[in-house]
Amino acid sequence: MNSTCKPIVWKEHKLFLLDQRLLPHTETFVEITDLSSCALAIKEMVVRGAPCIGFTAIYGMALWVKTQSKLTVDSCRIACDEMIIARPTAVNLAYEVNRCFLIMKDTLLAGEDKDNLFKKLVAFGDKQIHESEDKNTRMAKIGFEELKRKFGDKKWNLMTHCNTGFLACGSLGTALGVISYANAQGKVEHVYADETRPYMQGTRLTAFELSKEKIPYSIVVEGAASYLMLHNKVDAIFVGADRIVANGDTANKIGTSTLSIVAKHYGVPFYVVAPISSFDLSISNGTQIEIEMRDMSEITEFKGLKLAPTGALSVNPSFDVTDHTFITGIICEKGFINPMNPGELGRVVNS
Amino acid sequence: MNSTCKPIVWKEHKLFLLDQRLLPHTETFVEITDLSSCALAIKEMVVRGAPCIGFTAIYGMALWVKTQSKLTVDSCRIACDEMIIARPTAVNLAYEVNRCFLIMKDTLLAGEDKDNLFKKLVAFGDKQIHESEDKNTRMAKIGFEELKRKFGDKKWNLMTHCNTGFLACGSLGTALGVISYANAQGKVEHVYADETRPYMQGTRLTAFELSKEKIPYSIVVEGAASYLMLHNKVDAIFVGADRIVANGDTANKIGTSTLSIVAKHYGVPFYVVAPISSFDLSISNGTQIEIEMRDMSEITEFKGLKLAPTGALSVNPSFDVTDHTFITGIICEKGFINPMNPGELGRVVNS
Repeated sequence: MNSTCKPIVWKEHKLFLLDQRLLPHTETFVEITDLSSCALAIKEMVVRGAPCIGFTAIYGMALWVKTQSKLTVDSCRIACDEMIIARPTAVNLAYEVNRCFLIMKDTLLAGEDKDNLFKKLVAFGDKQIHESEDKNTRMAKIGFEELKRKFGDKKWNLMTHCNTGFLACGSLGTALGVISYANAQGKVEHVYADETRPYMQGTRLTAFELSKEKIPYSIVVEGAASYLMLHNKVDAIFVGADRIVANGDTANKIGTSTLSIVAKHYGVPFYVVAPISSFDLSISNGTQIEIEMRDMSEITEFKGLKLAPTGALSVNPSFDVTDHTFITGIICEKGFINPMNPGELGRVVNS
Repeated sequence: MNSTCKPIVWKEHKLFLLDQRLLPHTETFVEITDLSSCALAIKEMVVRGAPCIGFTAIYGMALWVKTQSKLTVDSCRIACDEMIIARPTAVNLAYEVNRCFLIMKDTLLAGEDKDNLFKKLVAFGDKQIHESEDKNTRMAKIGFEELKRKFGDKKWNLMTHCNTGFLACGSLGTALGVISYANAQGKVEHVYADETRPYMQGTRLTAFELSKEKIPYSIVVEGAASYLMLHNKVDAIFVGADRIVANGDTANKIGTSTLSIVAKHYGVPFYVVAPISSFDLSISNGTQIEIEMRDMSEITEFKGLKLAPTGALSVNPSFDVTDHTFITGIICEKGFINPMNPGELGRVVNS
């Protein structure tokens, strides 16, 4: 793994973000100096992926503290809320910023000064990144062991959908973390990356990550799934998860469920890799997951260019739900879950 | 069906082609005046789809005859070969042009004049178009009866992949012909058109055809197949065929086989609609069909815009093979074939 590939860099009390809007062709880091430039970077998707947005916001709150002449619990609350509304639907953003607020409040009520609070928030950001890296490494090792167990000594041909690497996760990644780790052990023959319509996360972001790590790969259209598996080009498939519910049903980027059905037909193992924070055991099965419908123009246009006839409609679900019976294994930082074994998911998650 | 939607118009001894490169936003007819402008139009995809290329070439040969001061069998052969190399891999082009050559040779050897030969070639072109229209109508009626038998009186939600309508076929079309015919009978609730990566035939061409015929439709990404079928949005799927072999295995645009596997999982009937000319009984099963690999840039770029990182590879098979066990029925102008019934395909095709 190439440790220079980090989308968030905190260095000498300064925050630098890799501008992901310009990928894959331009690699520019933007310096974030205060709360408003941080919130803007989150809003305008300079930084993306739930974990990365959370990490960025923590450092952003630290930068805000540094610039204040007078801090109160109230002013901290207002600043936190300003950060949260940068992306109101990003659950992880609100979660991390509210944890920052608790640190702020406790520190101020204890009578400690601004410099101490600044250091505490930076340390909190560092800790979150390190913990995430640690979880991702644990998942990658579990995935690697599963592949070794299943396919032994040959090199593996792997496939993935959407983007789950260091750009989204800060380091290593989830599904792509397994692939990246396996490659570092010299065990990857080739990776097939779904282009991932309509947003092209595969072509733009996953391909960028694979290029950076010098992992041999090809981009494919999603319709090629059957062709690839019929011709024995794919040993195993790894995808991430937006949400995993109690029975193992998994919401992930549109196309994931389609891919899982083709994989099952050809007997290709299909793995979901996601940290415990992506599990929602309050929901019993996938039929209860609400699917966000996105703007039609994402399909009928491309980068502002109209593709479809004027007035053409599209249906653009952001996610689909993969049935747990199509998932060979769910890999989280606490272990490997076979969703066909009743009770196993709950036991691992609550262990 | 809207009879004004014809991509090839022969009128007052003149040939006009709808410039399909400019669809769906600009509808311009190009006048073809001689052999070289006709060959160029075929080469540069002003006209596309195997049947349309064949019809165009026949009228093109008629136009050539009109402009000659002296005709010999040898000059006819040279002109025919000039037309054929416009698209050397288009089997249908060579087939129709060689039939033109036989008409030319017989007419010249019988001592008939240029005007007679011109009329014969135009009549041959007209006949081919009418016969094709007739076949397509027969197939559409067979598909319509199958839907009525299966789903009775409700209106139907149908899905299709790639482009199989009047733009490719001159009139009505094959798979889209069934949909168009059913719509004319007031039986279509909604059509889901796969955008069909990487060439976007669905978004650009099928959507244009559906718009022209005022059939309610939505464009979808191919990954949405499982989402749509899980939510009971699709009653039946109709696709065309590049080639159907003896056991019913069918080569068609990449993504067709992937769609068929998802359809089978959800119990959604999957139909192939293609004329007898698309059958190749010399091949026993789909494993023997060679798949054309197309240029990587079709996936890594879009309209000249680089999407993927520099140096990114892609795998770009043009077609895939749908296993006959995933096909509910094959519809040709001679009848309905259940590819699961041994011998039925051969009986119908040879009847």
